[in-house]
Amino acid sequence: MSAEVKPESVSLGPLGPAGAPGPEPLCVLGTGDLGRSLGQRLLRAGYRVVYGSRRPGSCGPLPEGAQVMSHAAAAQAARLVFVCIHRENYAFLEALAPELKGKVLVDVSNNLKKNLHPEANAEYLQRLVPGAHVVKAFNTLSAWTLQTGPSDANRQVHLCGDSAEAKDAVADVAAKLGFGAVDRGAVSAARELEDVPLQLFPQWRLPLRLAAGLTAFFFLYLLLRDVVSKYTSEGKDVSFRIMVSLANKVFPIVSLIMLSLCYLPGVMAAFLQLHRGTKYKRFPEWLDRWMLCRKQLGLLALGFASLHVLYTLIIPIRYYVRFRLSAITVSEIRENRTAAFDTTMAWRTDSYYAVGILGFGLYLLLGITSLPSVSNALSWREFSFIQSKLGFLTLLLCTFHTYLYGWDKFLRASSYRWYTPPGYMLCLLPPSAVLALKLLLLLPCVDRSLARIRQGRERARPREDAEKALLT
Amino acid sequence: MSAEVKPESVSLGPLGPAGAPGPEPLCVLGTGDLGRSLGQRLLRAGYRVVYGSRRPGSCGPLPEGAQVMSHAAAAQAARLVFVCIHRENYAFLEALAPELKGKVLVDVSNNLKKNLHPEANAEYLQRLVPGAHVVKAFNTLSAWTLQTGPSDANRQVHLCGDSAEAKDAVADVAAKLGFGAVDRGAVSAARELEDVPLQLFPQWRLPLRLAAGLTAFFFLYLLLRDVVSKYTSEGKDVSFRIMVSLANKVFPIVSLIMLSLCYLPGVMAAFLQLHRGTKYKRFPEWLDRWMLCRKQLGLLALGFASLHVLYTLIIPIRYYVRFRLSAITVSEIRENRTAAFDTTMAWRTDSYYAVGILGFGLYLLLGITSLPSVSNALSWREFSFIQSKLGFLTLLLCTFHTYLYGWDKFLRASSYRWYTPPGYMLCLLPPSAVLALKLLLLLPCVDRSLARIRQGRERARPREDAEKALLT
Amino acid sequence: MSAEVKPESVSLGPLGPAGAPGPEPLCVLGTGDLGRSLGQRLLRAGYRVVYGSRRPGSCGPLPEGAQVMSHAAAAQAARLVFVCIHRENYAFLEALAPELKGKVLVDVSNNLKKNLHPEANAEYLQRLVPGAHVVKAFNTLSAWTLQTGPSDANRQVHLCGDSAEAKDAVADVAAKLGFGAVDRGAVSAARELEDVPLQLFPQWRLPLRLAAGLTAFFFLYLLLRDVVSKYTSEGKDVSFRIMVSLANKVFPIVSLIMLSLCYLPGVMAAFLQLHRGTKYKRFPEWLDRWMLCRKQLGLLALGFASLHVLYTLIIPIRYYVRFRLSAITVSEIRENRTAAFDTTMAWRTDSYYAVGILGFGLYLLLGITSLPSVSNALSWREFSFIQSKLGFLTLLLCTFHTYLYGWDKFLRASSYRWYTPPGYMLCLLPPSAVLALKLLLLLPCVDRSLARIRQGRERARPREDAEKALLT
Ligand SMILES: Cc1cc2nc3c(=O)[nH]c(=O)nc-3n(C[C@H](O)[C@H](O)[C@H](O)COP(=O)(O)OP(=O)(O)OC[C@H]3O[C@@H](n4cnc5c(N)ncnc54)[C@H](O)[C@@H]3O)c2cc1C
Ligand SMILES: Cc1cc2nc3c(=O)[nH]c(=O)nc-3n(C[C@H](O)[C@H](O)[C@H](O)COP(=O)(O)OP(=O)(O)OC[C@H]3O[C@@H](n4cnc5c(N)ncnc54)[C@H](O)[C@@H]3O)c2cc1C
Ligand SMILES: Cc1cc2nc3c(=O)[nH]c(=O)nc-3n(C[C@H](O)[C@H](O)[C@H](O)COP(=O)(O)OP(=O)(O)OC[C@H]3O[C@@H](n4cnc5c(N)ncnc54)[C@H](O)[C@@H]3O)c2cc1C
Repeated sequence: MSAEVKPESVSLGPLGPAGAPGPEPLCVLGTGDLGRSLGQRLLRAGYRVVYGSRRPGSCGPLPEGAQVMSHAAAAQAARLVFVCIHRENYAFLEALAPELKGKVLVDVSNNLKKNLHPEANAEYLQRLVPGAHVVKAFNTLSAWTLQTGPSDANRQVHLCGDSAEAKDAVADVAAKLGFGAVDRGAVSAARELEDVPLQLFPQWRLPLRLAAGLTAFFFLYLLLRDVVSKYTSEGKDVSFRIMVSLANKVFPIVSLIMLSLCYLPGVMAAFLQLHRGTKYKRFPEWLDRWMLCRKQLGLLALGFASLHVLYTLIIPIRYYVRFRLSAITVSEIRENRTAAFDTTMAWRTDSYYAVGILGFGLYLLLGITSLPSVSNALSWREFSFIQSKLGFLTLLLCTFHTYLYGWDKFLRASSYRWYTPPGYMLCLLPPSAVLALKLLLLLPCVDRSLARIRQGRERARPREDAEKALLT
Repeated sequence: MSAEVKPESVSLGPLGPAGAPGPEPLCVLGTGDLGRSLGQRLLRAGYRVVYGSRRPGSCGPLPEGAQVMSHAAAAQAARLVFVCIHRENYAFLEALAPELKGKVLVDVSNNLKKNLHPEANAEYLQRLVPGAHVVKAFNTLSAWTLQTGPSDANRQVHLCGDSAEAKDAVADVAAKLGFGAVDRGAVSAARELEDVPLQLFPQWRLPLRLAAGLTAFFFLYLLLRDVVSKYTSEGKDVSFRIMVSLANKVFPIVSLIMLSLCYLPGVMAAFLQLHRGTKYKRFPEWLDRWMLCRKQLGLLALGFASLHVLYTLIIPIRYYVRFRLSAITVSEIRENRTAAFDTTMAWRTDSYYAVGILGFGLYLLLGITSLPSVSNALSWREFSFIQSKLGFLTLLLCTFHTYLYGWDKFLRASSYRWYTPPGYMLCLLPPSAVLALKLLLLLPCVDRSLARIRQGRERARPREDAEKALLT
Repeated sequence: MSAEVKPESVSLGPLGPAGAPGPEPLCVLGTGDLGRSLGQRLLRAGYRVVYGSRRPGSCGPLPEGAQVMSHAAAAQAARLVFVCIHRENYAFLEALAPELKGKVLVDVSNNLKKNLHPEANAEYLQRLVPGAHVVKAFNTLSAWTLQTGPSDANRQVHLCGDSAEAKDAVADVAAKLGFGAVDRGAVSAARELEDVPLQLFPQWRLPLRLAAGLTAFFFLYLLLRDVVSKYTSEGKDVSFRIMVSLANKVFPIVSLIMLSLCYLPGVMAAFLQLHRGTKYKRFPEWLDRWMLCRKQLGLLALGFASLHVLYTLIIPIRYYVRFRLSAITVSEIRENRTAAFDTTMAWRTDSYYAVGILGFGLYLLLGITSLPSVSNALSWREFSFIQSKLGFLTLLLCTFHTYLYGWDKFLRASSYRWYTPPGYMLCLLPPSAVLALKLLLLLPCVDRSLARIRQGRERARPREDAEKALLT
């Protein structure tokens, strides 16, 4: 794959604006599909494009207006060179090193899997052609976007590279194609960029699995307890309750458990720090991982809570409910009873709804502040005020909502059909535990020693730090 | 309009901090309203400001603390020159070329209409003064924001220009005034920036018109069919149904049709590619335009779906509904009937609601991921998983919801009053067609040949590309 | 605190990758908690780290792999120096000026309170070491984030400084640690950055207080009027209405008042301008402040409106409501009455709901466009179309909704129990006034003179500006 030095230019198509001496040409190495799409797009944006090909004479149809030359000649013709070749074939670029010296080499490649190679493609390229300024760019775009311009998912080109000027040059091309440019630092960030197109919600896996598991468990539990048991003991078929009534029990249960799982690791971390008496030891691996997926846990919990709200709001238009209400009225008249208004009942149910609504309102607020543009606009003090302080308040309200729902049923034996507690009683355990532990942490003496341990972390206590700094 | 070379400085107001020799001065050419507002703001931010005016002695009230000189003198006094003159009057700047050489010229101008001139104002300015570094900036701000500082709609200054250093200098001024700076590339991007302040939701026009047309059509259709027909045939005035019942039929119908119109072009594109056997031919113009407004179609569809949800949830508090439910109970008692509980009915209606809620939940998810900050945080694989895979699931659920609503009414002759089908039957046609076509595309053999055609686009098949690249 | 010139390097831990001569070292001045955390993080990211300490031999435990030297030696060893010392102790850096010459000095410090010092820490540092390139950075991160990497609230490092190259170097380090970098301009922006970590929703204070005040007032008012009066006059205990019925009166009232307070200042500004005949006088202080918190007023109003919606939607599942409805049916049968269907009532209540829902839909739209990423994507013409035009439409719909609710009760004496009007009548005053004033402003003659006054602001009238510019 020796580079042919003698330039042999093969001009394609009419010598239109692209062939004209006007704008500075860009070089595309590689005439595969990717190279062709990219070249076409560059041509349409008004650039002159020269292709570098091993056999300039026989490389198939290229976009109209482009020139094709040998690799070496093409590389020499432009200051900016797009490498549209797969990593497996980079080796021959080593021979082009002299021609590529001082040039900007744009690595747009991706891999099939993560960790296929010990170093990122761009780093490998930089090693092969040390004299060039390698910039990793465009690889996070979909091929479709590369061909047609910005789409909703891809309005930014992420760049990295060691030379600021080279990055500027690539950013300018990106801007011409309609993209914003985001500088991601030195070429060492290439690995991260190369992993982007391969990922499919990696941080959501664990929380999603947890949610699915909890949903399945409670669905089965309640199916057995509420539907099957009714059938076996009373012979009554209430299977129609599955679609709404059962679901509307499962959703709030899963939501509350997941919400408490958001706040459990923070409390555990605090106790661990109290026990160790230092913050300088790292948390165990599992705790770290748990803490890193709290956002996803919380958002899924919010999703389940929203379903609960919608399922609750359609209750009165359900056929079953209308039927039952009418039946109650009818039987009241036929049996000539007069129901007495129960003020306690009115207070209790209204409080139950009111607390639930306020809890859901705060829940939504947590969700809104976790939108990237909103959390970016907050200082970390503001963010943690909402997520931590108001978050615990949300947990408190939602737990209270569930207790109000249970009311005195906790003490009635009839609640424990088949010796099993109803679902909502089970789901009260985790939040109650989290709230109790949090309460412990808020005791003045505990709070003080925790604060002392975390001192180093808190910028708010610089006086002491200052003294330490002075002592060094 | 010859430039006066001899500088004749006229200092205005007391020689306060701005008049002091301290900070480097900025020059504002033009003493119209815009120039005055901008100068005032710069002065308040701590800059020294010199105005360039044709008649420095008689140019009316200028902000306190500014100096005023001849055009040439002012241009000479500062490294950064704001051009606050209208494009029509740029010509005289050609004569200032020597004084402006090497200076940063900031073009803040806008035009009254798109495409008034063959080249962008900034490009024209650059052509007039080739020795200067023209930067297009600040023109996307409202005049109000320019005068008072960042507002919610304008927190970023969009810049473009050929010199990175010049852009940095302007970005620094922007930062002093409280704005973030977004680099939009070379001066050739100026045209795009100059079009920004003129646009009023251009991509929303077509979808909005479509929505309005569909709404009007179905409103009339249902008005005739449900209200007028009732009046003419039975003499019953049910006009009160217009406000809620009728609206709540129109909204879901329009929503479902528009949702299916989101997914129709993708399917059509696939069949077109299958038919042509290649992906290298461009789609017809109308298909391209349709595909580009799918986001707006989808968001409008979501809006209509949300209205449908709210209109449905208030059903039980409506006077009419309460009246009717009470009347049913009353007549049941008076006629001594006992309604039997219909388990199928319970299953059907509950399923109908449950499927609707789940569909709406996914709908919302599509909406959330189309928020710019959220879609920016997703890789394109993630974005297209949600928008395409979950989008079709949404369409499926919403269509199924509507079929469940119809249930056995499709087969009953009485549904077809006046020989017209009810609205929801009409609106089932587009989604059913889209889903059927999509199903066809998912057949293994079709799927495979489509994949082969799209190969070039898909990065996921680099092995073959690599081989092609090697052959070149 | 004289700087020891003779370098005495003390290597800690095994000479691992960090100790290797490989990558360029970074210097951390100060071995307090902050310096230690930061150093650890830099080491983990692959940097070599040298600490500068007054007593290199006895400065306590440092992260494994770091080197520790005298201040002067450490400063000399690296091109990039993190200053992890408190401002109070900066003075000794003056003596290090020779070693720090041409170096990049990163100021990460924060203060305990705003306005403690006449100049920003970074500016003070720059004054002490004029030969260095001071960059303010990292101070807006939480200490936790500094130690562990990006979190949701902190994904961006805000930088400012006078040297573009120095900022690039710091941005590269930031990128290696996983952060995006946002350039905030020259070192003079440091004060603003130093204030960020201290703020806790400053712009929300006033609107929150207002909301709390209004809520308390109307709660008490309605409590006295609806609950207490009922008890004293009729002896009936309706206290259970507090939780939902009362709250659901207070929320919409507060929401409507706050919405009208969003649009009042704009109208007042217009009248002020009309009265003064000029736009060049500044608004009074209170009006300016009021205008700056309209976004927060509006979002709080939206929050109250959402609570109103949820509280309204649960009405039919409330025990009290079900009881009452059943009681009505029962009494109808027992007393053998037949309620007649009231078409006007049906029209009125349905219109009332429909208008409310449409108003709420627009309300939500206003809320969505005020998300930072959405408002950033809009041109100011688009943003102000939605916020101003559709905003007034929202106000109109919500006001109309309330009038429809009142209907003919405005004229009935019985509405004015204890001679006090019901809450919703009170709350109609501000929006009615705002709408009436706005209507006045829309009168052609008023509109024209207002437009003439605002001319200068409006880019849309460049012809006249141009003439003025020519006359200068
Ligand atoms: C709808 C919803 C959305 C959510 N969105 C997000 C989100 O966007 N991002 C997110 O992270 N979580 C999110 N969560 C989860 C949860 O609200 C947060 O993780 C919350 O901050 C946890 O509070 P905490 O007090 O338990 O933990 P933290 O405030 O994180 O503290 C827990 C422990 O971790 C350490 N720690 C962590 N952060 C800091 C810090 N800044 N300073 C000092 N020490 C610290 C301390 O050792 C502390 O003991 C969301 C939850 C819900 C319900
Ligand atoms: C609430 C809501 C919000 C929405 N928000 C958005 C939004 O923000 N942005 C948006 O674009 N749409 C949005 N939509 C519309 C719709 O969801 C998307 O356009 C969706 O991607 C269409 O899926 P598809 O499979 O039909 O089309 P695509 O996945 O776009 O594919 C259709 C055809 O176009 C070509 N094509 C397009 N993109 C690619 C690609 N990346 N790779 C390869 N080929 C491609 C292919 O030839 C393919 O056959 C929204 C819809 C709703 C209901
Ligand atoms: C849910 C919700 C969300 C909201 N979000 C926001 C938000 O994100 N940001 C926000 O600012 N407001 C927000 N608001 C408040 C309100 O909608 C806006 O302030 C709205 O622009 C006020 O319209 P206006 O016509 O009264 O005032 P403006 O359009 O601001 O005009 C009022 C006066 O101020 C001057 N003025 C202000 N801006 C300009 C300008 N651009 N050009 C010329 N003159 C101007 C003029 O002298 C004019 O007379 C929100 C309100 C609600 C209900």
